[in-house]
Amino acid sequence: MAEKVVLAYSGGLDTSVTIKWFIDEGYDVVALCLDVGEGKDLDVVYQKALDMGAVESYVVDTKEEFANDFVSYAIYGNSMYEGKYPLVSALSRPLISKKLVEVAQETNADYVAHGCTGKGNDQVRFEVAIKALDPTLKVLAPVREWTWSREEEIDYAKKHNIPIPINLDSPYSIDQNLWGRSNECGILENPWNKPPEDAYDLTKNPEDAKDESEELLITFKEGLPTALNETEYPLDELILKLNEIAGAHGIGRIDHVENRLVGIKSREIYETPAAKVILTAKHDLETITLTKDIAHYKPVVEQKYSEQVYNGLWFSPLSDALRNNLKDMQKDVTGIVRVELYKGNVIVTGRHSEKSLYNEKLATYTSEDAFNQESSVGFIDIFGLPTKVKSMLDNEVDVYD
Amino acid sequence: MAEKVVLAYSGGLDTSVTIKWFIDEGYDVVALCLDVGEGKDLDVVYQKALDMGAVESYVVDTKEEFANDFVSYAIYGNSMYEGKYPLVSALSRPLISKKLVEVAQETNADYVAHGCTGKGNDQVRFEVAIKALDPTLKVLAPVREWTWSREEEIDYAKKHNIPIPINLDSPYSIDQNLWGRSNECGILENPWNKPPEDAYDLTKNPEDAKDESEELLITFKEGLPTALNETEYPLDELILKLNEIAGAHGIGRIDHVENRLVGIKSREIYETPAAKVILTAKHDLETITLTKDIAHYKPVVEQKYSEQVYNGLWFSPLSDALRNNLKDMQKDVTGIVRVELYKGNVIVTGRHSEKSLYNEKLATYTSEDAFNQESSVGFIDIFGLPTKVKSMLDNEVDVYD
Amino acid sequence: MAEKVVLAYSGGLDTSVTIKWFIDEGYDVVALCLDVGEGKDLDVVYQKALDMGAVESYVVDTKEEFANDFVSYAIYGNSMYEGKYPLVSALSRPLISKKLVEVAQETNADYVAHGCTGKGNDQVRFEVAIKALDPTLKVLAPVREWTWSREEEIDYAKKHNIPIPINLDSPYSIDQNLWGRSNECGILENPWNKPPEDAYDLTKNPEDAKDESEELLITFKEGLPTALNETEYPLDELILKLNEIAGAHGIGRIDHVENRLVGIKSREIYETPAAKVILTAKHDLETITLTKDIAHYKPVVEQKYSEQVYNGLWFSPLSDALRNNLKDMQKDVTGIVRVELYKGNVIVTGRHSEKSLYNEKLATYTSEDAFNQESSVGFIDIFGLPTKVKSMLDNEVDVYD
Amino acid sequence: MAEKVVLAYSGGLDTSVTIKWFIDEGYDVVALCLDVGEGKDLDVVYQKALDMGAVESYVVDTKEEFANDFVSYAIYGNSMYEGKYPLVSALSRPLISKKLVEVAQETNADYVAHGCTGKGNDQVRFEVAIKALDPTLKVLAPVREWTWSREEEIDYAKKHNIPIPINLDSPYSIDQNLWGRSNECGILENPWNKPPEDAYDLTKNPEDAKDESEELLITFKEGLPTALNETEYPLDELILKLNEIAGAHGIGRIDHVENRLVGIKSREIYETPAAKVILTAKHDLETITLTKDIAHYKPVVEQKYSEQVYNGLWFSPLSDALRNNLKDMQKDVTGIVRVELYKGNVIVTGRHSEKSLYNEKLATYTSEDAFNQESSVGFIDIFGLPTKVKSMLDNEVDVYD
Repeated sequence: MAEKVVLAYSGGLDTSVTIKWFIDEGYDVVALCLDVGEGKDLDVVYQKALDMGAVESYVVDTKEEFANDFVSYAIYGNSMYEGKYPLVSALSRPLISKKLVEVAQETNADYVAHGCTGKGNDQVRFEVAIKALDPTLKVLAPVREWTWSREEEIDYAKKHNIPIPINLDSPYSIDQNLWGRSNECGILENPWNKPPEDAYDLTKNPEDAKDESEELLITFKEGLPTALNETEYPLDELILKLNEIAGAHGIGRIDHVENRLVGIKSREIYETPAAKVILTAKHDLETITLTKDIAHYKPVVEQKYSEQVYNGLWFSPLSDALRNNLKDMQKDVTGIVRVELYKGNVIVTGRHSEKSLYNEKLATYTSEDAFNQESSVGFIDIFGLPTKVKSMLDNEVDVYD
Repeated sequence: MAEKVVLAYSGGLDTSVTIKWFIDEGYDVVALCLDVGEGKDLDVVYQKALDMGAVESYVVDTKEEFANDFVSYAIYGNSMYEGKYPLVSALSRPLISKKLVEVAQETNADYVAHGCTGKGNDQVRFEVAIKALDPTLKVLAPVREWTWSREEEIDYAKKHNIPIPINLDSPYSIDQNLWGRSNECGILENPWNKPPEDAYDLTKNPEDAKDESEELLITFKEGLPTALNETEYPLDELILKLNEIAGAHGIGRIDHVENRLVGIKSREIYETPAAKVILTAKHDLETITLTKDIAHYKPVVEQKYSEQVYNGLWFSPLSDALRNNLKDMQKDVTGIVRVELYKGNVIVTGRHSEKSLYNEKLATYTSEDAFNQESSVGFIDIFGLPTKVKSMLDNEVDVYD
Repeated sequence: MAEKVVLAYSGGLDTSVTIKWFIDEGYDVVALCLDVGEGKDLDVVYQKALDMGAVESYVVDTKEEFANDFVSYAIYGNSMYEGKYPLVSALSRPLISKKLVEVAQETNADYVAHGCTGKGNDQVRFEVAIKALDPTLKVLAPVREWTWSREEEIDYAKKHNIPIPINLDSPYSIDQNLWGRSNECGILENPWNKPPEDAYDLTKNPEDAKDESEELLITFKEGLPTALNETEYPLDELILKLNEIAGAHGIGRIDHVENRLVGIKSREIYETPAAKVILTAKHDLETITLTKDIAHYKPVVEQKYSEQVYNGLWFSPLSDALRNNLKDMQKDVTGIVRVELYKGNVIVTGRHSEKSLYNEKLATYTSEDAFNQESSVGFIDIFGLPTKVKSMLDNEVDVYD
Repeated sequence: MAEKVVLAYSGGLDTSVTIKWFIDEGYDVVALCLDVGEGKDLDVVYQKALDMGAVESYVVDTKEEFANDFVSYAIYGNSMYEGKYPLVSALSRPLISKKLVEVAQETNADYVAHGCTGKGNDQVRFEVAIKALDPTLKVLAPVREWTWSREEEIDYAKKHNIPIPINLDSPYSIDQNLWGRSNECGILENPWNKPPEDAYDLTKNPEDAKDESEELLITFKEGLPTALNETEYPLDELILKLNEIAGAHGIGRIDHVENRLVGIKSREIYETPAAKVILTAKHDLETITLTKDIAHYKPVVEQKYSEQVYNGLWFSPLSDALRNNLKDMQKDVTGIVRVELYKGNVIVTGRHSEKSLYNEKLATYTSEDAFNQESSVGFIDIFGLPTKVKSMLDNEVDVYD
């Protein structure tokens, strides 16, 4: 009996070729395709997998699960790898891995497979996640095994009647989900080159964006956005809607040379319109709802969590603990933020919360002032005492009050 | 003989009243006014101090020293308190303190004085810095001692023939130097209120900014900007010039509710056009010139240093060590960054360095690829080993290759 | 009607004098005394408070609550302020504060009071904790207000018929609970002086300790010790029992010059026999039960939590979040540790856990070895790639495999 | 012409076999042996390499360089991987790598080689260090390539007339230098097993150690020990001498299950008598000479540096920067520490420094007290303000002073 492999199938050229190649190698292929918010037509992909020869084809709309269980923690944690990249692809990999393992277990497959190359982060994310969930599964990575050039792959596709996409000459390598879109390769490989407009898809160039600014109210409950202009949406729908709104204002373009897990620097173009607006607004809401000590400590947790997820360690005791911790520190992040969207800018113009720790009576310079300024004398005396002791030593004097 | 006090004198109402008040209290007042890049007319201030009754008046242009010895480390360290505030006022306080101490020692004064209130950070910064430099000096803070309302202060001023400024009804409390301008009070005290346009001075509203984007080349040597469009400038001049260029594009507005050292949250409006452009460009240059391990470690040092300076601990062994460390990690940050300035946006469109660690042969997906993809198999095997061991334990299976 | 104050009463001279002083000042005094494991006779203290004139006297045995809700997190977090001090007094202050507030609310008191001086940490811990629990309560600190010398206090006591303790000439200031004993003052104030033997009470001098070593099995469940030599005990009893056992072996002496919150360095002698054994054993158990990434991250959380508690910030959202996080990372810290106690030494000689991530098949150098050594080649290739790229740049060569 | 390989040669069985094997494979072997303080007879090793067939034999006494340039930073940094392991072997690997590269360059060799297995840290340390110093050199690791069992290796040795060591049946794998000795394998592979006495060599069992305690004065200058009982020694000699003194008192045994870089947990026995004494004493001296802010920040740098060195990243810009930073923070760590050595214990009984920031006038509870206790009221008011604001919000009350 043929051995069975469950393949993460996108419907594109690489994974279609992979199906044929597996069949050639004697495997039964089960294709699995998820919609994580990139606007895929799942019916088309379902049929295509079968047309390619898959013995079974699974398609699943996971937008809601992706938003609620994966993107949510990136919002709690203001996740930004290297302060720039909101972890777009790094968030979908563990979900896809989880579904691959589930289907493998249901279909009694011994193998799962992905279509990643051997020099990216995604291969690591898939393989480590799969091992974490089921260490008995074996992972195959045919694209990493082939040493085909682009031309050889196309020859193979033609020979096997695999439909060749019309944008075959696109120089780019793209990944997309509801949290954003990544793009690399081609002219972008020279970091001095300005990205051409065709490198972008979700966002207008700020110069071509709407000439009118747009005001938007974003409501947050315990760290997650729940409403736009006071209309409530499920998280996945809110993000997709906000991608449209903010993309039209040229918001969310990122051009970043990042340090991959596999030891190289890589230039990436990201578009994350909704992420940019949500994280800007939420971070601002945190300024009034988080205590100072949480505000100063949380970045440490945030950086660690971003690195864990970027590095493919989603399923690990540390990542679990960090997720709980980040969520724990968001209990009071409830309120409303008013932003203006304008030609690439997300400008917070107001924030309000019933949990606000901003105390106008203490902050004001008017006659309403309730701050006891006399306390400052004692505070400075003690806060500055170590400095004074050091200075007395250095200056060889003794001065006490 | 009267006791002598050296006063940090700005020429404004508060410190002019302070001179008179000190004279009433029987002190000889030495006025000291520095230009830290806010565009002060030092001759006018010099004379005004004497007119108010100061026994001596010192004025010093410290723009160059301020840029080279104080702002420079904020650039090395990408200094941003709470990720938002580039430490504008916090940078000038130690310089002013240093000069106050020097003049006090030269003039044999026992006292130095500042004009800060009792609920801000600046009182702490002055007093701790002064103790650090000369623990024998006593610090006076008359504005903190008075419990005058605004009206009482004006009455006092009128009675003593102190010129009342024409913008007396300005609701704002402003501080400025070449690294930026801060503004607080008035309508801004309600964090839901949008800042009115008159709260800003150095920057255009992005909506009213130039309609044409502007390309700019910024050259860095070992972490500091040295040239704009390949014309070299001393650091202080470069910053002032860039404030003008970027301010005209609506760049550098910050609206932030920050956690003060003295325990309260305070809403602040900052304008830092040059800082925004320099730090954006420099941070980008770091992405190709810093090793990954430095890139991931430096933020820890940066946050610590920002907090030290914000908290008034400029003159301390830890701050010294952090400064050396930050500078040390900038040795290779040499190169050129191309940015576009457009309606509030600073968009990096290219970066180049002879110290670049970006290696196109390793990064490329073309046939030039020099990355050994086979190594990834072993890498993932070992990188994922702890996850697999944990998973074997949880799943009660033993799987070895 | 007299105003009512609830006083944290120890039964000692200072707080007895305080009762009288409050009565003189016109207050009704409610005395509250807790047993946190220092072996107090609560009946005696109860009566003494009434004898001193208190209108009500409360005594509560809180050993169990103290162990379960306060000490437990110090165990989860391996809490050691500055790597040396296991937070003895810092742990009891929040519990005492909580009880003070409860009694104040029950008895409708407007005031609570403590007997701390004005230069220690405990005043801060009490006052901040009390504000956190009930910001309407006012805190009185009579010992800080008096400016009495020791002699003046004794005169006052004699005049008011307050019993003078027989060890009045003891130079030491002592605090004790089940987690340990602290001692300061007297000859210890010179950090060059060796502590005299009478500075210690819970521990033998190692030189005078038992000549026979003693083996002990300590069982842990999810981070907490539950049994000694396989006999189960409630946490408070286990700690008290272990204090006796380990103290007899001269274990747990600490001599530390620490940085107080109030800006000074202070030399402290601690005795923490049980804490030393428990934390040594638990830390060892963590080496086999925690993943590497948790093991390397947890010290950051531990240090932060220790500082929070030391600084009196027990009741704060950050401390809550850190406690949850620390406990979360202890889920798998279950197992047994074998230690030898001998003349000051706690020597772990074995550790065992069903949750152990130590994998002998992977670790062994025998023929059982299941580690795939070939993977190391790929691992080193990629792990070392950033170093090689930097080196190629510095050496101006290009070398690819 | 034969290709040339420079081999890190120890004189033991593995590397002797390696020489023969290389000759069989057609290489010219240059043997390089360093004395890093393990008490090697360099003359014997020199000759043995030639006897085995090496074309050239280099032996170098590097004790002084090892102490001054490698161990010194471990002292500055209180280096302890995972809080337990003082980096013994991790410190010598970069030095050996440096010498290998120098000899390879002098002798025009294209290859360098080490005798490490494929599952340890040392292979990584050697290979990454060598790439850092000369990326054109190729590294060979024959022991990793062979898949010989112990028996096969001995057969090979016998067949090639390689002297078989008399302690061939020793189950242990040992590495040693002046900073300590590591031991693994054999019965130690079960972490429940108590290490047998023959696992130790540098230290007495505390139970068998001297019955008399010994007092020792250790002098430090800027972070490094310079004298014992006021007799000055070069660092390498001081360490070797202290190993003897402290080892006789049973000091410096470490039994640790550590997380290797290559993904496994490994049980290690270390003996580091001098390191234990020096780091204990130096850490104590830091308590009086470092400011609080350095004392609380330095552990972050220390942990990072320990991990860098453990992971073989000695030669990297980050490690350079960390070394400078650690040294920078030791400028004031000058003074004298009195310790007692007794049956496994290093007990600090006094510390003194002209740079001491401990201020007895501020610390004392006698009538000499110069601490202004009134300042505490203002300090607590402001330090506790954020807590109070949060509490007012939670309790829905407004209370101002």
